[in-house]
Amino acid sequence: MKYALLVSYDGTDYGGWQIQKNAVTVQQKLSEALEKTLGFKVGVTASGRTDSGVHAAAQVCHFSAQTSVPAERLADALNFNLPSDISVLKSAAAPDDFDATASAKKKTYCYRLYVSGKRHPLKDRYSEHIKHQIDIEKLVEAGKFFEGEHDFKAYCAAGSQVKTTVRTVYSVEVKPRFSPLVTDVEVFVTGNGFLYNMVRTLVGTMLYFAAGRVSAEDIKRSLEQGDRNSVGKTMPAKGLTLEAVDYGFKLF
Amino acid sequence: MKYALLVSYDGTDYGGWQIQKNAVTVQQKLSEALEKTLGFKVGVTASGRTDSGVHAAAQVCHFSAQTSVPAERLADALNFNLPSDISVLKSAAAPDDFDATASAKKKTYCYRLYVSGKRHPLKDRYSEHIKHQIDIEKLVEAGKFFEGEHDFKAYCAAGSQVKTTVRTVYSVEVKPRFSPLVTDVEVFVTGNGFLYNMVRTLVGTMLYFAAGRVSAEDIKRSLEQGDRNSVGKTMPAKGLTLEAVDYGFKLF
Repeated sequence: MKYALLVSYDGTDYGGWQIQKNAVTVQQKLSEALEKTLGFKVGVTASGRTDSGVHAAAQVCHFSAQTSVPAERLADALNFNLPSDISVLKSAAAPDDFDATASAKKKTYCYRLYVSGKRHPLKDRYSEHIKHQIDIEKLVEAGKFFEGEHDFKAYCAAGSQVKTTVRTVYSVEVKPRFSPLVTDVEVFVTGNGFLYNMVRTLVGTMLYFAAGRVSAEDIKRSLEQGDRNSVGKTMPAKGLTLEAVDYGFKLF
Repeated sequence: MKYALLVSYDGTDYGGWQIQKNAVTVQQKLSEALEKTLGFKVGVTASGRTDSGVHAAAQVCHFSAQTSVPAERLADALNFNLPSDISVLKSAAAPDDFDATASAKKKTYCYRLYVSGKRHPLKDRYSEHIKHQIDIEKLVEAGKFFEGEHDFKAYCAAGSQVKTTVRTVYSVEVKPRFSPLVTDVEVFVTGNGFLYNMVRTLVGTMLYFAAGRVSAEDIKRSLEQGDRNSVGKTMPAKGLTLEAVDYGFKLF
């Protein structure tokens, strides 16, 4: 039997999704909870790795096992064995050929930032603090450059080994919320897949454009010729959350 | 010279506002930062104490001192000496007769909760998890009982020593936000002052009414006769945030 899990986690205290030496990871905690719950070891695969410190509102994973626990009851059983910063929101039986990574059609990430002269402790855990004012209209304009199919090799951390660096970004949506002391900005990016650090570098470049540090031509050159010189800095992990994975059918 | 500070803090790791033995408090951290910044000790007074674990988006404090630091520059100077979970958002010169406690005309607290069968790690720090469904219309109805001038002695933690337990609640606003897996609810309560634990007990009672555990008559009796039997449980501190203090004039 194949099972799918919808998982949310606060990535602050984890070395990302994937099991590794020298860091506690979400995959490790979930594997341990599965072993405690099922009584035997099983491998668990996610829609994609999230990096160290990145959060997930709705990561999707799969595993294969023979168990008498009803699929929809697995969530509560697993949560009993999980720490408070990881939670299984849904569990379900999945089609035999379902693969959380390979079957994913679209993913949506959100990068959150807040603009204020001062640090706001109640925002600081899941949102990056930007001290200087941002031209929101230019931020919206910058997002449009990335929509469509492009070779994002300039937006990929050096040393990544992937077959192709071509990805399709379906939309980049900038949602500001203005209040007297602070402007909160959410940048939602939906695509068919993302390279290592791609969303964080893309948002960093959007901020460079909004600040007048790179031009529209610079960004076009980065996409057409892979020119890294006009690419902004990679934004910190804590502002990034995996919001949704779309498989083209109702999984849960 | 009198100075006013607008302060935000994540109360998770503090034993509340007021200096005490056996716990690190926000007043203590702010006093230490003031001493480091000014070079001498000064007392600092807030609009009111917040309890252990309660947060503040905008607490107001005052202190008196002779200093050559311009009032509006004090915020950055203090933040340099404050931990990351406390931040001074604004600093200003205040009228000589200003007193953060006595001059306060209105305060607004927000109690946040989320309704879901499962724990959501990304909501859990500043919002209380409610597992059972809530009748939102009944929650709104419950809030109305508390509006107006009432004797809230049944909603005050036992053993409090205050001159009077009569307070005026100007408004109780329930703001739900519905999404597929979870309903977020914010309850904003504005009043001329609040007794110890009053907002948390008031929200607990609203939840009891929404669940049919107490009736409209029970709540009326609690307000008219101080009957504690129909009062709901005191909600956990982490869902509560002091949102605003109003002095009837522009302080910052």
